[in-house]
Amino acid sequence: MAEFVHLVVVKFKEDVVVEDIIKGLEKLVSEVDSVKSFVWGKDIESMEMLRQGFTHALMMTFSSKDDFNAFQTHPNHLEYSATFSAAIEKIVLLDFPAVVVKPPTA
Amino acid sequence: MAEFVHLVVVKFKEDVVVEDIIKGLEKLVSEVDSVKSFVWGKDIESMEMLRQGFTHALMMTFSSKDDFNAFQTHPNHLEYSATFSAAIEKIVLLDFPAVVVKPPTA
Repeated sequence: MAEFVHLVVVKFKEDVVVEDIIKGLEKLVSEVDSVKSFVWGKDIESMEMLRQGFTHALMMTFSSKDDFNAFQTHPNHLEYSATFSAAIEKIVLLDFPAVVVKPPTA
Repeated sequence: MAEFVHLVVVKFKEDVVVEDIIKGLEKLVSEVDSVKSFVWGKDIESMEMLRQGFTHALMMTFSSKDDFNAFQTHPNHLEYSATFSAAIEKIVLLDFPAVVVKPPTA
């Protein structure tokens, strides 16, 4: 797990083709070297009450906050942000240094 | 990154000592073998408008959905859930199979 996490929890608008959004993100993270990892998923299990309408989580990790900052201001990110913003109905976004309690390789 | 993710985004109640909650979670994940990894963080960067009052993200990963199910019904988890639930003001919870676009080791 990287040291800085960019976490996005979203509900997309009804007419959005999520596959297209994901393809755009795949392209973006392949273009921007400072993105260390990118994992996403669609909720399949949480109760509606707990998921509160949100359906997808997107997690990017960076080796440092500087790398995250470089991503935030990268021209390709700024360009894609407009497309992404137009697709979402609601969003929660958290950016934080990861505290690793139990590492994935343990 | 593991194959199944349990993602919790929360705002704790004002009088909650977050360190105590984290200690409880550290104990829990050390006791339950099916938890493959546990990473958490406190938002330091996102704009208030985008974070919407949420402050902390907690991410657990599991090798499979079966392992996640084992965690969900584990007595220690059920016991700790009561403590955790009492501490939160609001929560979003997503459970999903991870789609790895860019692996951490790339």
